[in-house]
Amino acid sequence: MSEPTRRPPSGAATLRADKTAAIAEAVLDELAEHGYGRLSMEAVAKRAGVGKSALYRRWPSKQRMVIAVVSEPTVALADPPDTGSLRGDVLAALHAVADWLTHPRFSRILPDLIAEAQRDDELRRALALRIGEPRRARMIGVLDRAVERGELPPDLDRELALDLLGGLVYWRVSARGAALEPGYFERAADMALRALDARPRRA
Amino acid sequence: MSEPTRRPPSGAATLRADKTAAIAEAVLDELAEHGYGRLSMEAVAKRAGVGKSALYRRWPSKQRMVIAVVSEPTVALADPPDTGSLRGDVLAALHAVADWLTHPRFSRILPDLIAEAQRDDELRRALALRIGEPRRARMIGVLDRAVERGELPPDLDRELALDLLGGLVYWRVSARGAALEPGYFERAADMALRALDARPRRA
Repeated sequence: MSEPTRRPPSGAATLRADKTAAIAEAVLDELAEHGYGRLSMEAVAKRAGVGKSALYRRWPSKQRMVIAVVSEPTVALADPPDTGSLRGDVLAALHAVADWLTHPRFSRILPDLIAEAQRDDELRRALALRIGEPRRARMIGVLDRAVERGELPPDLDRELALDLLGGLVYWRVSARGAALEPGYFERAADMALRALDARPRRA
Repeated sequence: MSEPTRRPPSGAATLRADKTAAIAEAVLDELAEHGYGRLSMEAVAKRAGVGKSALYRRWPSKQRMVIAVVSEPTVALADPPDTGSLRGDVLAALHAVADWLTHPRFSRILPDLIAEAQRDDELRRALALRIGEPRRARMIGVLDRAVERGELPPDLDRELALDLLGGLVYWRVSARGAALEPGYFERAADMALRALDARPRRA
Protein backbone atom coordinates (compact mmCIF):
# COMPACT_ATOMS: atom_id res chain seq x y z
CA MET A 1 0.00 0.00 0.00
CA SER A 2 1.42 3.42 -0.81
CA GLU A 3 0.37 6.65 0.80
CA PRO A 4 -0.96 9.34 -1.46
CA THR A 5 1.11 12.49 -1.85
CA ARG A 6 0.19 14.93 0.87
CA ARG A 7 -0.93 18.42 0.03
CA PRO A 8 -0.43 21.50 2.15
CA PRO A 9 -3.41 22.52 4.26
CA SER A 10 -5.82 24.84 2.51
CA GLY A 11 -4.91 28.48 2.80
CA ALA A 12 -1.22 27.63 2.93
CA ALA A 13 -0.51 27.97 -0.76
CA THR A 14 3.08 29.01 -0.19
CA LEU A 15 4.00 25.66 1.42
CA ARG A 16 5.81 23.38 -1.01
CA ALA A 17 3.97 20.10 -1.55
CA ASP A 18 7.18 18.14 -2.04
CA LYS A 19 8.46 19.32 1.34
CA THR A 20 5.16 18.45 3.00
CA ALA A 21 5.35 14.96 1.48
CA ALA A 22 8.94 14.50 2.66
CA ILE A 23 8.00 15.58 6.17
CA ALA A 24 5.02 13.23 6.23
CA GLU A 25 7.23 10.31 5.21
CA ALA A 26 9.70 11.25 7.95
CA VAL A 27 6.91 11.44 10.55
CA LEU A 28 5.63 7.96 9.60
CA ASP A 29 9.16 6.51 9.66
CA GLU A 30 9.95 8.05 13.04
CA LEU A 31 6.62 6.92 14.49
CA ALA A 32 7.16 3.36 13.26
CA GLU A 33 10.72 3.20 14.55
CA HIS A 34 10.55 5.07 17.83
CA GLY A 35 6.89 5.66 18.66
CA TYR A 36 4.98 8.83 19.52
CA GLY A 37 6.51 9.32 22.95
CA ARG A 38 10.06 9.41 21.66
CA LEU A 39 9.33 11.30 18.44
CA SER A 40 10.98 14.71 18.33
CA MET A 41 10.47 17.59 15.92
CA GLU A 42 14.27 17.70 15.55
CA ALA A 43 14.48 14.09 14.40
CA VAL A 44 11.63 14.56 11.91
CA ALA A 45 13.19 17.71 10.47
CA LYS A 46 16.59 16.05 10.14
CA ARG A 47 15.13 12.95 8.49
CA ALA A 48 13.09 15.06 6.05
CA GLY A 49 16.07 17.28 5.26
CA VAL A 50 14.27 20.47 6.28
CA GLY A 51 14.53 22.97 9.10
CA LYS A 52 12.29 22.74 12.16
CA SER A 53 10.55 25.92 11.01
CA ALA A 54 9.23 24.00 7.99
CA LEU A 55 7.37 21.76 10.44
CA TYR A 56 5.98 24.59 12.56
CA ARG A 57 4.83 26.50 9.46
CA ARG A 58 2.57 23.52 8.73
CA TRP A 59 1.44 22.36 12.19
CA PRO A 60 1.55 24.14 15.56
CA SER A 61 2.54 21.07 17.60
CA LYS A 62 3.85 17.53 17.47
CA GLN A 63 0.39 16.20 18.21
CA ARG A 64 -1.28 18.14 15.38
CA MET A 65 1.47 17.08 13.00
CA VAL A 66 1.16 13.40 13.87
CA ILE A 67 -2.63 13.36 13.71
CA ALA A 68 -2.66 15.18 10.36
CA VAL A 69 -0.05 12.89 8.82
CA VAL A 70 -1.50 9.64 10.17
CA SER A 71 -5.17 10.42 9.57
CA GLU A 72 -4.99 10.91 5.83
CA PRO A 73 -3.83 7.44 4.72
CA THR A 74 -5.56 5.75 7.66
CA VAL A 75 -8.96 7.15 6.84
CA ALA A 76 -8.38 6.51 3.12
CA LEU A 77 -7.62 2.85 3.89
CA ALA A 78 -11.09 2.53 5.41
CA ASP A 79 -12.88 3.54 2.23
CA PRO A 80 -15.03 0.49 1.69
CA PRO A 81 -16.02 -0.66 -1.78
CA ASP A 82 -19.72 -1.27 -2.39
CA THR A 83 -19.73 -4.93 -3.41
CA GLY A 84 -23.52 -5.09 -3.50
CA SER A 85 -23.84 -7.69 -0.74
CA LEU A 86 -23.28 -7.60 3.01
CA ARG A 87 -21.01 -10.61 2.89
CA GLY A 88 -18.85 -9.02 0.20
CA ASP A 89 -18.72 -5.74 2.12
CA VAL A 90 -17.83 -7.50 5.40
CA LEU A 91 -15.06 -9.48 3.68
CA ALA A 92 -13.72 -6.26 2.17
CA ALA A 93 -13.82 -4.54 5.56
CA LEU A 94 -11.98 -7.40 7.30
CA HIS A 95 -9.34 -7.41 4.56
CA ALA A 96 -8.96 -3.64 4.84
CA VAL A 97 -8.40 -3.84 8.62
CA ALA A 98 -5.91 -6.68 8.13
CA ASP A 99 -4.03 -4.77 5.42
CA TRP A 100 -3.80 -1.79 7.73
CA LEU A 101 -2.63 -3.81 10.75
CA THR A 102 -0.02 -5.75 8.76
CA HIS A 103 1.24 -2.70 6.86
CA PRO A 104 5.00 -2.31 7.53
CA ARG A 105 4.58 1.08 9.17
CA PHE A 106 0.97 1.21 10.36
CA SER A 107 1.28 -2.15 12.12
CA ARG A 108 3.58 -0.33 14.54
CA ILE A 109 2.05 3.13 14.45
CA LEU A 110 -1.54 2.28 15.37
CA PRO A 111 -0.85 0.14 18.46
CA ASP A 112 1.64 2.77 19.61
CA LEU A 113 -0.89 5.60 19.28
CA ILE A 114 -3.48 3.51 21.13
CA ALA A 115 -0.97 2.99 23.94
CA GLU A 116 -0.09 6.70 24.13
CA ALA A 117 -3.78 7.62 24.13
CA GLN A 118 -4.20 5.81 27.47
CA ARG A 119 -1.84 8.36 29.04
CA ASP A 120 -2.84 11.44 27.04
CA ASP A 121 -6.51 12.47 26.97
CA GLU A 122 -5.99 15.16 24.35
CA LEU A 123 -4.33 12.68 22.00
CA ARG A 124 -7.13 10.19 22.65
CA ARG A 125 -9.77 12.77 21.70
CA ALA A 126 -7.84 13.83 18.59
CA LEU A 127 -7.49 10.22 17.45
CA ALA A 128 -11.20 9.59 17.97
CA LEU A 129 -12.20 12.78 16.16
CA ARG A 130 -9.80 12.68 13.24
CA ILE A 131 -9.34 8.95 12.66
CA GLY A 132 -11.88 6.83 14.54
CA GLU A 133 -15.02 8.78 13.69
CA PRO A 134 -14.35 9.28 9.95
CA ARG A 135 -13.50 5.58 9.61
CA ARG A 136 -16.63 4.57 11.50
CA ALA A 137 -18.84 6.93 9.52
CA ARG A 138 -17.78 5.17 6.32
CA MET A 139 -18.46 1.75 7.79
CA ILE A 140 -21.84 2.83 9.15
CA GLY A 141 -22.75 3.63 5.55
CA VAL A 142 -21.97 0.01 4.68
CA LEU A 143 -24.27 -1.25 7.44
CA ASP A 144 -27.03 1.17 6.48
CA ARG A 145 -26.97 -0.07 2.89
CA ALA A 146 -27.39 -3.64 4.18
CA VAL A 147 -30.32 -2.57 6.37
CA GLU A 148 -31.92 -0.99 3.29
CA ARG A 149 -31.47 -4.22 1.33
CA GLY A 150 -33.10 -6.13 4.18
CA GLU A 151 -29.90 -8.00 5.03
CA LEU A 152 -29.60 -6.54 8.54
CA PRO A 153 -32.24 -5.73 11.17
CA PRO A 154 -33.08 -2.01 11.31
CA ASP A 155 -32.40 -1.91 15.06
CA LEU A 156 -28.86 -3.26 14.60
CA ASP A 157 -26.46 -1.98 17.29
CA ARG A 158 -24.10 -0.28 14.84
CA GLU A 159 -21.51 0.60 17.49
CA LEU A 160 -21.17 -3.02 18.59
CA ALA A 161 -21.11 -4.18 14.97
CA LEU A 162 -18.20 -1.89 14.17
CA ASP A 163 -16.34 -2.88 17.35
CA LEU A 164 -16.64 -6.46 16.15
CA LEU A 165 -15.25 -5.79 12.67
CA GLY A 166 -12.28 -3.83 14.00
CA GLY A 167 -11.61 -5.79 17.16
CA LEU A 168 -11.71 -9.25 15.65
CA VAL A 169 -8.71 -8.64 13.39
CA TYR A 170 -6.92 -6.34 15.84
CA TRP A 171 -6.96 -8.97 18.54
CA ARG A 172 -5.58 -11.66 16.22
CA VAL A 173 -2.96 -9.61 14.40
CA SER A 174 -1.85 -6.86 16.77
CA ALA A 175 -2.66 -8.02 20.30
CA ARG A 176 -1.74 -11.70 19.81
CA GLY A 177 0.73 -11.27 16.94
CA ALA A 178 -0.80 -14.44 15.48
CA ALA A 179 -1.15 -15.49 11.87
CA LEU A 180 -4.18 -15.16 9.60
CA GLU A 181 -4.36 -18.78 8.48
CA PRO A 182 -5.85 -19.85 5.13
CA GLY A 183 -9.62 -19.55 5.24
CA TYR A 184 -9.46 -16.99 8.06
CA PHE A 185 -11.37 -14.27 6.27
CA GLU A 186 -14.15 -16.60 5.13
CA ARG A 187 -14.65 -17.93 8.65
CA ALA A 188 -14.39 -14.49 10.23
CA ALA A 189 -16.98 -13.16 7.78
CA ASP A 190 -19.34 -16.06 8.56
CA MET A 191 -18.95 -15.35 12.28
CA ALA A 192 -19.52 -11.61 11.75
CA LEU A 193 -22.68 -12.22 9.71
CA ARG A 194 -24.07 -14.43 12.47
CA ALA A 195 -23.11 -11.83 15.08
CA LEU A 196 -24.90 -9.10 13.11
CA ASP A 197 -28.00 -11.29 12.76
CA ALA A 198 -27.77 -11.09 8.97
CA ARG A 199 -30.54 -12.63 6.91
CA PRO A 200 -30.77 -13.46 3.19
CA ARG A 201 -31.21 -10.50 0.93
CA ARG A 202 -34.76 -9.58 -0.05
CA ALA A 203 -35.51 -10.65 -3.62
CA MET B 1 -8.92 -5.06 41.84
CA SER B 2 -5.84 -5.76 43.95
CA GLU B 3 -2.87 -7.81 42.88
CA PRO B 4 -1.97 -10.81 44.97
CA THR B 5 1.26 -10.67 46.93
CA ARG B 6 4.06 -11.94 44.75
CA ARG B 7 6.27 -14.78 45.88
CA PRO B 8 9.91 -15.30 44.98
CA PRO B 9 10.54 -17.78 42.15
CA SER B 10 10.92 -21.36 43.29
CA GLY B 11 14.46 -22.32 44.28
CA ALA B 12 15.12 -18.79 45.45
CA ALA B 13 14.19 -19.26 49.07
CA THR B 14 16.60 -16.59 50.24
CA LEU B 15 14.76 -13.82 48.39
CA ARG B 16 12.56 -11.79 50.70
CA ALA B 17 8.90 -11.89 49.67
CA ASP B 18 8.24 -8.35 50.89
CA LYS B 19 11.05 -7.01 48.69
CA THR B 20 9.73 -8.97 45.71
CA ALA B 21 6.28 -7.51 46.29
CA ALA B 22 7.68 -3.98 46.55
CA ILE B 23 9.62 -4.43 43.31
CA ALA B 24 6.56 -5.81 41.53
CA GLU B 25 4.53 -2.76 42.60
CA ALA B 26 7.31 -0.49 41.37
CA VAL B 27 7.46 -2.29 38.01
CA LEU B 28 3.69 -1.91 37.52
CA ASP B 29 3.79 1.76 38.49
CA GLU B 30 6.71 2.51 36.16
CA LEU B 31 5.09 0.59 33.30
CA ALA B 32 1.82 2.46 33.75
CA GLU B 33 3.51 5.86 33.97
CA HIS B 34 6.32 5.60 31.44
CA GLY B 35 5.79 2.42 29.42
CA TYR B 36 8.06 -0.51 28.67
CA GLY B 37 10.40 1.36 26.33
CA ARG B 38 11.30 4.00 28.89
CA LEU B 39 11.33 1.71 31.94
CA SER B 40 14.78 1.42 33.49
CA MET B 41 16.05 -0.99 36.12
CA GLU B 42 17.41 2.07 37.97
CA ALA B 43 14.01 3.71 38.20
CA VAL B 44 12.35 0.50 39.40
CA ALA B 45 15.03 -0.07 42.07
CA LYS B 46 14.76 3.51 43.27
CA ARG B 47 10.97 3.41 43.41
CA ALA B 48 11.02 0.08 45.31
CA GLY B 49 13.68 1.31 47.71
CA VAL B 50 16.09 -1.49 46.85
CA GLY B 51 19.40 -1.80 45.05
CA LYS B 52 19.59 -2.85 41.40
CA SER B 53 21.18 -6.13 42.53
CA ALA B 54 17.88 -7.03 44.22
CA LEU B 55 16.27 -6.93 40.77
CA TYR B 56 18.95 -8.96 39.04
CA ARG B 57 18.94 -11.60 41.78
CA ARG B 58 15.31 -12.22 40.82
CA TRP B 59 15.26 -11.78 37.05
CA PRO B 60 18.13 -11.73 34.53
CA SER B 61 16.72 -8.92 32.38
CA LYS B 62 14.17 -6.16 32.14
CA GLN B 63 12.05 -8.25 29.80
CA ARG B 64 11.98 -11.26 32.12
CA MET B 65 11.16 -9.02 35.07
CA VAL B 66 8.29 -7.28 33.29
CA ILE B 67 6.79 -10.49 31.92
CA ALA B 68 6.98 -12.19 35.32
CA VAL B 69 5.42 -9.27 37.16
CA VAL B 70 2.67 -8.60 34.61
CA SER B 71 1.73 -12.20 33.89
CA GLU B 72 0.74 -13.19 37.41
CA PRO B 73 -2.20 -10.81 38.01
CA THR B 74 -3.10 -10.73 34.31
CA VAL B 75 -3.49 -14.48 34.04
CA ALA B 76 -5.28 -14.59 37.41
CA LEU B 77 -7.78 -11.99 36.15
CA ALA B 78 -8.75 -14.39 33.36
CA ASP B 79 -9.79 -17.15 35.73
CA PRO B 80 -13.38 -17.60 34.63
CA PRO B 81 -16.08 -18.71 37.03
CA ASP B 82 -18.20 -21.67 35.97
CA THR B 83 -21.67 -20.15 35.98
CA GLY B 84 -23.27 -23.29 34.53
CA SER B 85 -24.48 -21.63 31.33
CA LEU B 86 -22.72 -20.31 28.26
CA ARG B 87 -24.46 -16.97 28.52
CA GLY B 88 -23.38 -16.59 32.13
CA ASP B 89 -19.82 -17.57 31.28
CA VAL B 90 -19.68 -15.18 28.30
CA LEU B 91 -21.01 -12.33 30.44
CA ALA B 92 -18.38 -13.10 33.08
CA ALA B 93 -15.63 -13.20 30.44
CA LEU B 94 -16.67 -9.86 28.93
CA HIS B 95 -16.79 -8.30 32.39
CA ALA B 96 -13.34 -9.73 33.20
CA VAL B 97 -11.82 -8.25 30.02
CA ALA B 98 -13.49 -4.91 30.75
CA ASP B 99 -12.24 -4.92 34.36
CA TRP B 100 -8.73 -5.59 33.12
CA LEU B 101 -8.83 -2.90 30.42
CA THR B 102 -10.28 -0.24 32.73
CA HIS B 103 -7.98 -1.12 35.65
CA PRO B 104 -6.01 2.01 36.63
CA ARG B 105 -2.67 0.41 35.83
CA PHE B 106 -3.43 -2.41 33.37
CA SER B 107 -5.45 -0.11 31.13
CA ARG B 108 -2.13 1.54 30.32
CA ILE B 109 0.20 -1.43 30.63
CA LEU B 110 -1.49 -3.81 28.20
CA PRO B 111 -1.81 -1.45 25.22
CA ASP B 112 1.78 -0.36 25.81
CA LEU B 113 3.09 -3.93 25.79
CA ILE B 114 1.10 -4.65 22.63
CA ALA B 115 2.70 -1.60 20.99
CA GLU B 116 6.21 -2.61 22.07
CA ALA B 117 5.62 -6.17 20.84
CA GLN B 118 5.26 -4.85 17.28
CA ARG B 119 8.91 -3.73 17.41
CA ASP B 120 10.35 -6.53 19.55
CA ASP B 121 9.82 -10.13 18.42
CA GLU B 122 11.23 -11.62 21.59
CA LEU B 123 8.83 -9.61 23.73
CA ARG B 124 5.95 -10.60 21.45
CA ARG B 125 6.76 -14.29 21.88
CA ALA B 126 7.16 -13.94 25.64
CA LEU B 127 3.79 -12.16 25.93
CA ALA B 128 2.10 -14.87 23.86
CA LEU B 129 3.70 -17.69 25.84
CA ARG B 130 3.38 -16.31 29.36
CA ILE B 131 0.17 -14.26 29.13
CA GLY B 132 -1.80 -14.93 25.97
CA GLU B 133 -1.68 -18.71 25.97
CA PRO B 134 -2.48 -19.30 29.67
CA ARG B 135 -5.40 -16.87 29.41
CA ARG B 136 -6.67 -18.55 26.26
CA ALA B 137 -6.29 -22.04 27.73
CA ARG B 138 -8.64 -21.06 30.56
CA MET B 139 -11.19 -19.63 28.17
CA ILE B 140 -11.01 -22.66 25.87
CA GLY B 141 -12.09 -24.68 28.93
CA VAL B 142 -15.20 -22.48 29.12
CA LEU B 143 -16.02 -23.13 25.46
CA ASP B 144 -15.37 -26.88 25.80
CA ARG B 145 -17.81 -27.07 28.71
CA ALA B 146 -20.47 -25.40 26.55
CA VAL B 147 -19.80 -27.84 23.71
CA GLU B 148 -20.27 -30.71 26.19
CA ARG B 149 -23.58 -29.22 27.32
CA GLY B 150 -24.68 -29.00 23.68
CA GLU B 151 -24.72 -25.18 23.75
CA LEU B 152 -22.00 -24.80 21.11
CA PRO B 153 -21.28 -26.77 17.94
CA PRO B 154 -18.39 -29.24 18.37
CA ASP B 155 -16.58 -27.81 15.34
CA LEU B 156 -16.58 -24.29 16.81
CA ASP B 157 -13.54 -22.25 15.68
CA ARG B 158 -12.19 -21.67 19.19
CA GLU B 159 -9.46 -19.28 18.07
CA LEU B 160 -11.94 -16.99 16.36
CA ALA B 161 -14.34 -17.25 19.31
CA LEU B 162 -11.64 -16.09 21.72
CA ASP B 163 -10.53 -13.29 19.38
CA LEU B 164 -14.13 -12.10 19.47
CA LEU B 165 -14.43 -12.08 23.26
CA GLY B 166 -11.13 -10.23 23.73
CA GLY B 167 -11.29 -7.97 20.71
CA LEU B 168 -14.84 -6.73 21.18
CA VAL B 169 -14.11 -5.04 24.51
CA TYR B 170 -10.52 -4.06 23.60
CA TRP B 171 -11.71 -2.16 20.54
CA ARG B 172 -14.36 -0.27 22.50
CA VAL B 173 -12.39 0.50 25.64
CA SER B 174 -8.74 0.68 24.63
CA ALA B 175 -8.61 1.40 20.92
CA ARG B 176 -11.57 3.82 20.83
CA GLY B 177 -11.42 5.00 24.42
CA ALA B 178 -15.22 4.91 24.37
CA ALA B 179 -17.65 4.25 27.18
CA LEU B 180 -19.40 1.01 28.09
CA GLU B 181 -22.95 2.35 28.13
CA PRO B 182 -25.72 0.80 30.26
CA GLY B 183 -26.81 -2.49 28.75
CA TYR B 184 -23.50 -2.91 26.95
CA PHE B 185 -22.63 -6.28 28.42
CA GLU B 186 -26.07 -7.76 27.78
CA ARG B 187 -26.00 -6.68 24.14
CA ALA B 188 -22.39 -7.74 23.66
CA ALA B 189 -23.18 -11.16 25.14
CA ASP B 190 -26.20 -11.54 22.83
CA MET B 191 -23.99 -10.68 19.85
CA ALA B 192 -21.27 -13.08 20.98
CA LEU B 193 -23.75 -15.94 21.41
CA ARG B 194 -25.06 -15.38 17.89
CA ALA B 195 -21.48 -15.19 16.57
CA LEU B 196 -20.62 -18.50 18.26
CA ASP B 197 -23.75 -20.13 16.83
CA ALA B 198 -25.00 -20.96 20.34
CA ARG B 199 -28.13 -23.04 20.73
CA PRO B 200 -30.38 -23.73 23.73
CA ARG B 201 -28.92 -26.07 26.28
CA ARG B 202 -29.88 -29.75 25.97
CA ALA B 203 -32.47 -30.75 28.53
